[in-house]
Parts: sequence; C-alpha cells; structure tokens
Amino acid sequence: MTAPSTVAEIPTPALILDATAMQANIERMAEFFREGDCKLRPHFKAHKTLEIARRQLAAGSCTGLTCATVAEAEAVADICDDILIANEVIGPDKTARVAAIAARGVDLKIAVDSLVGLALAGEAAVSAGVEVGVLVDVNVGMPRCGVPPDAAAELAARAAETPGVRLRGLMGYEGHAVGIPERDKREHVTRGAMDGLLSAVSAVREAGLPCDIVSAGGTGSYDITGRIEGITEIQAGSYALMDTAYAKLDGPFRQAIWVLGTVISRPAPGLCVTDSGHKACTEDHGNPDIDGVEGASILFLSDEHASITLPPESAIVVGDRIRLVPSHVDPTINLHDVIYVVEGDRVTDVWPVAARGYAEQRR
Amino acid sequence: MTAPSTVAEIPTPALILDATAMQANIERMAEFFREGDCKLRPHFKAHKTLEIARRQLAAGSCTGLTCATVAEAEAVADICDDILIANEVIGPDKTARVAAIAARGVDLKIAVDSLVGLALAGEAAVSAGVEVGVLVDVNVGMPRCGVPPDAAAELAARAAETPGVRLRGLMGYEGHAVGIPERDKREHVTRGAMDGLLSAVSAVREAGLPCDIVSAGGTGSYDITGRIEGITEIQAGSYALMDTAYAKLDGPFRQAIWVLGTVISRPAPGLCVTDSGHKACTEDHGNPDIDGVEGASILFLSDEHASITLPPESAIVVGDRIRLVPSHVDPTINLHDVIYVVEGDRVTDVWPVAARGYAEQRR
Repeated sequence: MTAPSTVAEIPTPALILDATAMQANIERMAEFFREGDCKLRPHFKAHKTLEIARRQLAAGSCTGLTCATVAEAEAVADICDDILIANEVIGPDKTARVAAIAARGVDLKIAVDSLVGLALAGEAAVSAGVEVGVLVDVNVGMPRCGVPPDAAAELAARAAETPGVRLRGLMGYEGHAVGIPERDKREHVTRGAMDGLLSAVSAVREAGLPCDIVSAGGTGSYDITGRIEGITEIQAGSYALMDTAYAKLDGPFRQAIWVLGTVISRPAPGLCVTDSGHKACTEDHGNPDIDGVEGASILFLSDEHASITLPPESAIVVGDRIRLVPSHVDPTINLHDVIYVVEGDRVTDVWPVAARGYAEQRR
Repeated sequence: MTAPSTVAEIPTPALILDATAMQANIERMAEFFREGDCKLRPHFKAHKTLEIARRQLAAGSCTGLTCATVAEAEAVADICDDILIANEVIGPDKTARVAAIAARGVDLKIAVDSLVGLALAGEAAVSAGVEVGVLVDVNVGMPRCGVPPDAAAELAARAAETPGVRLRGLMGYEGHAVGIPERDKREHVTRGAMDGLLSAVSAVREAGLPCDIVSAGGTGSYDITGRIEGITEIQAGSYALMDTAYAKLDGPFRQAIWVLGTVISRPAPGLCVTDSGHKACTEDHGNPDIDGVEGASILFLSDEHASITLPPESAIVVGDRIRLVPSHVDPTINLHDVIYVVEGDRVTDVWPVAARGYAEQRR
C-alpha cells in the first residue's frame, strides 16, 4: 500500500495530527518567551518527532532542545546543536554515546546527581577527547532523581574539578506541581519548588562556581516558572500536541493529535468497539476521551480494542471512524512508527517517530 | 555498539528472557493438550516474536497460531500455514491484505460479527481469487465484539452463502473470566460463557451449517475450557512468558521475561530510580513487581523512570541492575524492538519483536 492521501485511507489505529493547531500552540509558546530573560528548551520526549522539533526551533525563543534519553539526543543531533539530556546517564556504553554526540560539535549537557554519574561522564569525555556539559540535578520535591538543594554546591564543586566535564548550571523539575489542576495551588507548589532550586543556585555561585543555566518547568508551569527571576529555561514538551491531562489546566493550548480508530464491531445498541486499544493509546493517565461523538465514553481498553458506550439511539456503524484524545501524549506517540499529518480530509504528510523501541541503543 | 555478549553489557531498559523457563512453560502447555480432543492455538499477540512462536509450534499439540491484527498474521505467515485472526477485520486495505495472506497458501481464518465484515472479507477474497475462512464471533459475556449466542446461526447462514468466504466455525473469548483469581468463581463464569458458545454451535449445526472449529480460552482458562467437550482449540498466549496478573492465578507457569533497568539515581536512603519507566514496562495492569530486591516496591513510573522505595539499609548503588516483572506482558513486549535471551550472565541470542508500531500496515 502506498501512503494514504485521504484520512479515509489511513489504516488504523493511527496517530493523526492537525498541523494548524500544532503550529498555533508552538507559536503561542514561543511568543510567551519573547518577553523576559527566560527561554524555552522544548522537550523532545513528548513527541519524538524531528519535524515537530524543527518547527519548535523555527518559532524562536529557544535555547535548544531537551531530551530524556541518549537515543533521543542522537536523533535530535541531526537538527540541533544545543541539547540537554535532562536525565542521569548511567550504564554500559551510554556515556560513550553521549561523548560521541558532543564530538559531532553539539553543545551537549546531561544531568548528574551522583559521583558515579560524574565519573562516568568525565571518563567518556576524556576518552573521546571532548568536553561534556553537566547540570547538577536538584530534587525540588518529586520523589525521583536529584540531590537535595543543600547538597548541590558540593556536587557542583566536584563537577568543576572533574576532567572532561564542564559545569554549566543546575536543573530541577517540579513534576509534582505541573499537574495540579487548581491554578493557585499549582503556583504555590511550583514557587516552593523553585525556591529550593534557586537556593541551590545561590550556594553554587557563592562557592565561586559557574551556573549559567538554570533549567526547570513544563507545560503545566511554564507561565509560572518561566517568570521567576533566575530561571533561564523551561523544558516544556506537551504543549505542542496536548492531551486530556494537560487540557484540565485550562492553558491556551489546543488539542492537536488524536488516535484514529475504526469501528470493527457494533455488538449492542449502546456499545461499539474500535481497533484502537492500549497498544495504540496508553491509559497511564486514565482512559482517553472521545472526540466528536455525542454521549460516547470509553468503557475499557484492551490490547487492540476500545469498548465504547454509546447512547442507545447512536447511528454509529461498523466502518465508521472514531478519534480518541490521548490522556498522556508522550507514551501514546511512543507506540507509533509514524504520525499522519491531516488537513480536513487530506493527508498532507507522514512523519516518522524517532528513538522508540530501545533497539537504537544497540547502534 | 555490537550486540552485547553479557547481561552487564545490555543497554537498558531492555527485555531479558530466560529461555529455559519459557521452554518449560511451552512444553507444559503442549503436554496438557496431548490428551483430549482440544488443541492449542498459541496467541502471537502476547509476544509478537517469531522465535517464540516457532518453539510453541515445535512443542506440538497446536492447530496453528492466533493473531490479533493483520500485521501479526503477515509476520506469522512466514512460519505457519494455519492462522486465525481472532478479531474483526475492518477498514481500508485490511481485508485485501487478509486475502493476500490466504494467497500465500495459508489456511487463514478471521472473526466476523457483522454483515459489513462478511461482505468486506468476501469481496476481497473474490477479488484476489482466494477463499478466506471465517469464524462467527460470539459474545460470551465480555462487553466487546461478537454477536449474541442466539444470533450466531443467522450470521453463519449468511457466511455460508457469501462468495469468497468459507464458514469454518465459531469463536467466543471469555475475557471477563480468565482473570478471576478464585478458581471456583473463574470456573463457574467460564463454564457459563462456554454454555453460551456451545448453544450457538448447536444452533449452527442444527441449521445444517459447518462448524469444524470452536475456538475459545486463554491462559487463565485453558485447563477449564480446554476440557469442555465441543471446544476444539484454545487461544492462550501469556503462558509462555507470564506476568504478575496471570501469576495470581496459581497456574503451573513460571515467569520467563523481565524488564531490566539500571539504577541511575540514589536520591535518598529509602529511594532509588531506574531507567525503566512506563515507556519500557506498561502499567495498564498496575505497577510491575520487582524481582530479587528484598523490601523494594514501585512508588510510581514516569515515562523513562521507575521510582522505587527501598529499605533504609539497602546497599543498592547507582549502576546496579534491577529487574521488573511486568504486570501485563503483551503491551510491555510491544514497547521493545528486541528481546535479549539470557542464560545466567550470558546473552545467548537477540530476538526481534514483530508487527509493532502500526507502520507495517503501510506495506
């Protein structure tokens, strides 16, 4: 089969993207960061799609791109020479691959929160004859990676003296705050988290160490964290395509991607089944929503099925198409090899999704 | 990087498989079906791995293989000439691809539960000059696909008169029963579901229609459904590799696959973080378990992180490896390009995972 030219020809399940809605989201975010000193470092993990990352960079206000994995950084290095892997890089071959990206002329930075991580990065960099930038990862409240704020200066000092490594600053992700629906509470938790990060920044600077980059934030906090003095860049990703979890925050971004499914069964008046199950649309943030079918809701997802309740009078028939709105865009895109770009009924492009499946790590 | 030869060299996150445990599971299931008239039709969707399907077929007691999607059947047709797509096949190009598989000499069967599905299958078969087998899909209690038991004979009659289509029998999946932990209750619900399927079988035969295949069952019900007179084959898949959901049923199968992660952070005495998040290990059946780390449990999964609570005295350090036991094996394997086969500390093989990502549907 050749690439489909109309939406009706797209084999399902499939991701379909409204490029106009996406472009509006990208421009709106870029516009926000035209004012003030803080810039945007769009997170590639949200969409894993070079065509989208290119548009984010082209819209301006960006320092570079953020990645979650080395494989993502390897993909992104084709289009961007300023990359932050906002994650600890540990394990066989991983830091050697990081050094190899730096050797391509990329201004590459990784997060570190341990002496082991620092040593691995330094050894790989020295071995490759390059310098790898590091940001000390500060835990600002979510039980995940990072040193406590009061331990950051100590690790920064060790970074500054590690051969092959160049200390560039700090990062701290307020992941426990970005999803809080109530604006007041989200702002309060976010500001508390950033107080911790900025106290670490002060301690590092007081120790006479460099701290040019202070990286934080996400789609749920960009307009809070992005206006806090001292934060230099925001790692937002989901805003470009959106999902139902972030839609609850009432931000200015519109849904731009859906999982298209085909009705394969109509077993009862109040029920239909599509071929878009949780191998095509994840449920880690709850069931997806349904777009454009009055009164319809997900009963449950199976591997390759969505069981959908309908009003008894529904005219849905076998062969109809139904769009799911993902509850979590990042892992949903990670399930697909391609994204179909659509304009009305036309397919205008097919974009590959990069760095999924983990086998690229065997390169 | 060349393929790793030891477990320590495997880049993480990664699937690792104990081939000895898997082989024991496969042989145990084949042994069960050596007695009685019912046979096994292993479900490919559980592992999507040709090397595993080959071993299932080689162990004997099999009628062929079960698939959930056309893409899986296209992959499986390379090694098996008797395939059931235990799912409705609807949508552009899909039935043409089914006919193309049949044209390769495969005894191919698909599920139908609507006149639309029947017509699409017939048209594609006639157009390709082949015959496509159909099983009428009977809803036996789970709110998913299938006609009610008392409507099966009518659809079977329509199938029997549809050019290009050959009526082969019925199927009914007791998906609402296979996961019930209490054996008595599971057996009761399973038998009730199979009563419905067998009443449909009787009606079809009384109408003078052929019904050679009566397909049902799964890993949770194989030893119940597989001993019910009139059921000819069982569509079990998860038994080969297992997961924590099926382990709760106290069957004879051992865990044979894990998600290997690397500890990338050790932010507090009671906490570590690995690089095996829900992009590597799904949580649709709940958090995975942790294998071999006393007192450890998953706090939460992020895209590329598992936050794991540890006893305060734990000696886990950055760089250590931790194995997650998937809660749902099918979608977890679907996240990976390859499976590393390991024997002790050695990697003995690397098996590709097939038919994931949905882009193969553009062939």
